[in-house]
Amino acid sequence: MSVVTLLSDFGTANGYVGAMKGVIKSMAPDAELIDITHDITPFSISYAAYTILNYYNHFPKGTIHVCVVDPGVGSSRKGLILQSEQAFYIGPDNGLFDLLMLEESLLRLYEINDLAESSSTFHGRDVFAPVAGLIATGTDPSKLGKAIPLKKPKPFQFRKVGSILYIPKLITDHFGNIIFAIKRNELSRKTIRAIYYKGYKFDRINNFYAQEKAGGLLCLWNSLNFLEVAQNQGSAAEYFSACAEDEIEIHLDEK
Amino acid sequence: MSVVTLLSDFGTANGYVGAMKGVIKSMAPDAELIDITHDITPFSISYAAYTILNYYNHFPKGTIHVCVVDPGVGSSRKGLILQSEQAFYIGPDNGLFDLLMLEESLLRLYEINDLAESSSTFHGRDVFAPVAGLIATGTDPSKLGKAIPLKKPKPFQFRKVGSILYIPKLITDHFGNIIFAIKRNELSRKTIRAIYYKGYKFDRINNFYAQEKAGGLLCLWNSLNFLEVAQNQGSAAEYFSACAEDEIEIHLDEK
Amino acid sequence: MSVVTLLSDFGTANGYVGAMKGVIKSMAPDAELIDITHDITPFSISYAAYTILNYYNHFPKGTIHVCVVDPGVGSSRKGLILQSEQAFYIGPDNGLFDLLMLEESLLRLYEINDLAESSSTFHGRDVFAPVAGLIATGTDPSKLGKAIPLKKPKPFQFRKVGSILYIPKLITDHFGNIIFAIKRNELSRKTIRAIYYKGYKFDRINNFYAQEKAGGLLCLWNSLNFLEVAQNQGSAAEYFSACAEDEIEIHLDEK
Repeated sequence: MSVVTLLSDFGTANGYVGAMKGVIKSMAPDAELIDITHDITPFSISYAAYTILNYYNHFPKGTIHVCVVDPGVGSSRKGLILQSEQAFYIGPDNGLFDLLMLEESLLRLYEINDLAESSSTFHGRDVFAPVAGLIATGTDPSKLGKAIPLKKPKPFQFRKVGSILYIPKLITDHFGNIIFAIKRNELSRKTIRAIYYKGYKFDRINNFYAQEKAGGLLCLWNSLNFLEVAQNQGSAAEYFSACAEDEIEIHLDEK
Repeated sequence: MSVVTLLSDFGTANGYVGAMKGVIKSMAPDAELIDITHDITPFSISYAAYTILNYYNHFPKGTIHVCVVDPGVGSSRKGLILQSEQAFYIGPDNGLFDLLMLEESLLRLYEINDLAESSSTFHGRDVFAPVAGLIATGTDPSKLGKAIPLKKPKPFQFRKVGSILYIPKLITDHFGNIIFAIKRNELSRKTIRAIYYKGYKFDRINNFYAQEKAGGLLCLWNSLNFLEVAQNQGSAAEYFSACAEDEIEIHLDEK
Repeated sequence: MSVVTLLSDFGTANGYVGAMKGVIKSMAPDAELIDITHDITPFSISYAAYTILNYYNHFPKGTIHVCVVDPGVGSSRKGLILQSEQAFYIGPDNGLFDLLMLEESLLRLYEINDLAESSSTFHGRDVFAPVAGLIATGTDPSKLGKAIPLKKPKPFQFRKVGSILYIPKLITDHFGNIIFAIKRNELSRKTIRAIYYKGYKFDRINNFYAQEKAGGLLCLWNSLNFLEVAQNQGSAAEYFSACAEDEIEIHLDEK
């Protein structure tokens, strides 16, 4: 029995996700469908790419992860199957899997073959769900696509000016926590002197939200070890009017 | 093992859907529950009716579809069981299944018997979930309701003035795509000269969203073959301030 | 095969719930995961406590209910396992189970042992999901925590002035229905003379919403037998600008 997880930006009200579930259940009656989310901000590939990091490595071996945030549907963008020791990942080739590829050891990568009868507007139902159904029932991905060379996406970029790192904002989550594109291990040998975000100075890196009183501002390494700015029981994104271009400043001690 | 799908306008936060799931699992432990959506706009029967079209025909034979958008709960409106070759549909008799009945070949239609102990406000839990649980465990619908004549709802209405069709808006979806009450096959023998929506002229019918650049306006036959106005990577509903009374004009070539 | 239900205020878009599901499926492959909701208003323990009442008693015997609304994560607040004849409940010790404990007969209560490797910010994934996975595979809760005395939370409080009861607002639901902290049986021997909410007088207690015309205001005993103010096919919360401090007045006939 295969586990098939589903992530999309479709919302659920229109029934598009229902259609994908029906296609998979019809092809693979024993597959167990697990919703991750359908509430990705519409068209937000970067939000989805970060979300995938939160769950991909917790599922049983052989899990099939279908991920569809697909503003280029119908164009010449290809569909992908990523195969690792642990899992399969199925979705469009538009950067959705870039963060995953920085962390997960891929074995093989396939470009999905064109399917004659697919609609131009709904590859979730007509391409990605059928591919998931076939893999769930044992079809080898090499039958469904052309193997292409593994590509390593470029790691997170940030500016360094003197002893200050300027780290771009990655995403804002559901609670209004603001997450930046740097992980704890990148600074493991550095001493941090101070952290500034929009003029606000964080005196320390907290361990958990409730270390500050309700409404208190804090920064911490979150459960994925990314740097995060939060407001205990509030929305840091609202407090700071966070926007896409924001950077956080990490002042290092360069002795 | 039966598949039981669930659609409602309950949201999930209140636990009403949880109660329905518990009732079904208690009666039919082997039933597999699949969420379609609980985010139908509250009380919007027409939105739900369109949503059903998106998924009903993709599920395995014998699937039980529970659909509850029920502003008249507790009144004299009846509950229905629709039986087709493929599936069972369970829900209130308030127009929720009208679009489905235009497309799906029904075999039988039943009015659900009154249940003595049901609450007046929550038939999802007290009527429709138990009926689904009983059908999932093999009870024949004829034991649960009275067979009534199949009724064919009236097809989509539109005005025709000279060579112009005025098509009413059906719904707006999660992405802000605006969907109109006409299907591709109704115009298959016609030549379309132009399409106007709120003064905006569409020069062609696109095949997919990404044929226009981001922000570009377009119309296309969507994945259900309804006419749809969209903005690539944006919300056409916001752009046009779409409202319920809107019509789209299709100018035909009447040579 | 165990049923494991999930309630949280995480939303789904960030993948936190996905991580919990992966952890449980990895530990208990046969467990069946059922979403209750992840749309609890962030940090709203009282909303979640009420929601639990709606579904807890409808699931099959042995169901494991995981409930995580946890603003104090990482602090010294403990995790709990509640065991009844019917079910297990797992979540933080912060009042989330207070309404449940007024209704459900508990057999045993455990404080979850500290887990060495858990993160400070995500006990849903690192504590509550693993505990659920272990119970689902047969581990006795006494192996996972220390038995502590059962505590009975204090029942609903209200003021009584002469023959008038002032009942505090409990929550507002998804439809904008306003629910108050009193149950029908508490007034079973009383005669109600009138009910006032923010100056509006309800002439009777309705049986169902559609007894009033669309837009009509009403009050009724809801499907959990709590007193509820509603607007048929509308939002009473919007109509009345409901806020947390609101009370409803029940005027009794004290003959």
